[in-house]
Amino acid sequence: MAAKKISSFHPPQRVLMGPGPSNINPRVLAAMSLPVIGYMDPAFVDMMAELKTLLRYAFQTDNQLTYPISGPGSVGMESCFVNMVAPGDKVVVCRNGVFGGRMIENVERCKGTPIIVEGTWGEPVDPNAVEDALKKNPDARIVAFVHAETSTGCVSDAKTLAEVAHKHDCLTIVDAVTSLAGCPLKVKEWDLDAVYSASQKCLSCTPGLSPVTYSDRVIDYVTGRKDKVQSWFMDLNLILNYWGHTVRTYHHTAPINGLFALHEALLLLKEEGIENTWARHQRHYQALKAGFEAMGLKFLVKEEKDRLPQISTIMVPEGIDEAEVRSKLLSEFNVEIGAGLGPLAGKVWRFGLMGYTANSANVMLCLSALGSILSKMGYPVKVGEAEAAAHQSYANQHTSMAQKARSRS
Amino acid sequence: MAAKKISSFHPPQRVLMGPGPSNINPRVLAAMSLPVIGYMDPAFVDMMAELKTLLRYAFQTDNQLTYPISGPGSVGMESCFVNMVAPGDKVVVCRNGVFGGRMIENVERCKGTPIIVEGTWGEPVDPNAVEDALKKNPDARIVAFVHAETSTGCVSDAKTLAEVAHKHDCLTIVDAVTSLAGCPLKVKEWDLDAVYSASQKCLSCTPGLSPVTYSDRVIDYVTGRKDKVQSWFMDLNLILNYWGHTVRTYHHTAPINGLFALHEALLLLKEEGIENTWARHQRHYQALKAGFEAMGLKFLVKEEKDRLPQISTIMVPEGIDEAEVRSKLLSEFNVEIGAGLGPLAGKVWRFGLMGYTANSANVMLCLSALGSILSKMGYPVKVGEAEAAAHQSYANQHTSMAQKARSRS
Ligand SMILES: Cc1ncc(COP(=O)(O)O)c(C=O)c1O
Ligand SMILES: Cc1ncc(COP(=O)(O)O)c(C=O)c1O
Repeated sequence: MAAKKISSFHPPQRVLMGPGPSNINPRVLAAMSLPVIGYMDPAFVDMMAELKTLLRYAFQTDNQLTYPISGPGSVGMESCFVNMVAPGDKVVVCRNGVFGGRMIENVERCKGTPIIVEGTWGEPVDPNAVEDALKKNPDARIVAFVHAETSTGCVSDAKTLAEVAHKHDCLTIVDAVTSLAGCPLKVKEWDLDAVYSASQKCLSCTPGLSPVTYSDRVIDYVTGRKDKVQSWFMDLNLILNYWGHTVRTYHHTAPINGLFALHEALLLLKEEGIENTWARHQRHYQALKAGFEAMGLKFLVKEEKDRLPQISTIMVPEGIDEAEVRSKLLSEFNVEIGAGLGPLAGKVWRFGLMGYTANSANVMLCLSALGSILSKMGYPVKVGEAEAAAHQSYANQHTSMAQKARSRS
Repeated sequence: MAAKKISSFHPPQRVLMGPGPSNINPRVLAAMSLPVIGYMDPAFVDMMAELKTLLRYAFQTDNQLTYPISGPGSVGMESCFVNMVAPGDKVVVCRNGVFGGRMIENVERCKGTPIIVEGTWGEPVDPNAVEDALKKNPDARIVAFVHAETSTGCVSDAKTLAEVAHKHDCLTIVDAVTSLAGCPLKVKEWDLDAVYSASQKCLSCTPGLSPVTYSDRVIDYVTGRKDKVQSWFMDLNLILNYWGHTVRTYHHTAPINGLFALHEALLLLKEEGIENTWARHQRHYQALKAGFEAMGLKFLVKEEKDRLPQISTIMVPEGIDEAEVRSKLLSEFNVEIGAGLGPLAGKVWRFGLMGYTANSANVMLCLSALGSILSKMGYPVKVGEAEAAAHQSYANQHTSMAQKARSRS
């Protein structure tokens, strides 16, 4: 067989309504394709300073050490663990989805001892269970949890969990990969210690960057460690020389174009205003939810208050081939949604409305595409009903906003 | 002080003649800014297959496991070490520059024992010294060396070093960050085991990706390891499920836009033909060298055969403020060159002609800018002499190529 001739790649145009990456604003794409400059260029160094300022705004913190790690969210996660967990350390890890499980893996590979607080997939982490674990393990040093579990669509109460941890003299490691910019995350007000995120979710930037922020407590601990951090690349003591101080020394080559893009994505967030961005995610989630409910579809996460607006996990109705639905959404409508992970594989779909993707056109496209596919597969849904419900939701929200505005003035 | 208002970043337009990143071909920049798609999208999966094929061509190998790691060259390096070095393993590491030193750090952090073969900065690694080390340490498992030392501009004889290693039953870890696509690197013919590179040097792609290739010997070793690789992110056993097999499962989110760019950069290499790319680097290096010599400047690497065409390390003439020269090149001519690293800091400049940057316009710009700056600083150079020498070099090369072509026909 002759080898296929390879030519330039032309990606199809997709609406990305899965668990990330989300669609990227053209302004961000344009920034990414600006000519590269050196990572020690004075112009680049100025941009790094702005990036840190913008990231502090996104995280709602004034932590000095707030910067983007040159790697995907998983590297952000591993960076927190390798720097903060020394061999033998006890770490309370809360698992109510896939990513809590990944945290456990990280603790083990750092030769720490994970104290696992098992939760139910689709329910928030239980602060009482964490308190119990800490009482039983007074020598635990760290509490680690996922703020927004992308695998279930459930949010946990990061503020309360951090309070419990600090009461027991523990530092916190918080996964904010999916929460950052999608729902309230207040690093300073909630007093979180090490928080990592990723670029491709509600920031709608190119995948491959992991914004992180560390409290001074974390820096004190890491700079005071006697043993060497097991990863050279992730060792904060070395990275501080590039991102932390004013005199910069070479550590590794920064992903320059990706950072151009992140700068622009964060600027868009700043321009919209983070509260407005949170509210936008809520608004479109409400409309999408109205549509799902009109179709008789059920959420995995039962309590409204526990649901993430940026990712809705929907139970696959009985008798429906879930993979076929996803594949038709993609091939017939160019809409990508997510499958279930781990024990939820085959049982749920995940619909993301993250960042730039969160708009009414996408809500409508998704509901009408899904309705059309499901009805052809024999699922009892009247085409048009879901869209009508979504429109009604937008209208109701509009009215209630107007009423609120009136009552304020 | 009021915070400065942040607006969109507009990078200056630079000619990148340092040790990388190099300038990026507009075709590659355009590819990078194409709309993002999902990392499990069938279209993306097809592109991944092409990427692997193109990377095999660049590495001159048919290794099955050849793929781009989602991180800079340093992550490529660390990935090789964490997967291949278990606690207690003896690893012969050759150090004749900065990056050999980084390899030693990696061995130590994997709790291996480095057997250091110290070399002279600016000279190639001595195969006899490696052989001696292996004779003294018959239980060594790995030999690690840098093919192209970016900190000195020196190339080592990878083929012979690999022969010595294999004679003593050792696997090889080879740093090809700067060599890939800039000078001959023949992974299959030279029988190299684990080879990592980076995207931002002679491939002239965006920084932040690390192409790697592993022989079956490496895969057998890693899949057969009883203990767990200390890094979750870099564990080849997990990554194989995404890049290695036909059924893909989620591991981490791939840097999609960066991979679009890498695909295009590798396609450009394929279109030019790798031998032609190597020859292009040689041709422009010869001209640049002629210009340097006309100015009376000296190379750190004495022997012509040991010099890397893609990076020339030049001794700073006595009495010249090296930092001022670099800063003027940047501010007056938009030309970035590199400073010396480690013990060479303040003593040398590094002039890169990597990938897309390697063309005659840049050679001429660099020589004329440098001549102008040096002469104003009182260094005895006649403006125009270096350029004339470079032109003469191009002309001579042209004649000798024509002669060769005639004698072949
Ligand atoms: C909650 C959470 N944590 C961590 C990650 C890992 O991020 P990445 O895929 O960028 O490595 C993800 C990615 O989906 C996530 O949703
Ligand atoms: C020989 C060599 N090895 C490793 C690296 C590290 O690559 P990166 O800076 O992309 O992490 C470099 C970068 O300059 C290099 O020149």
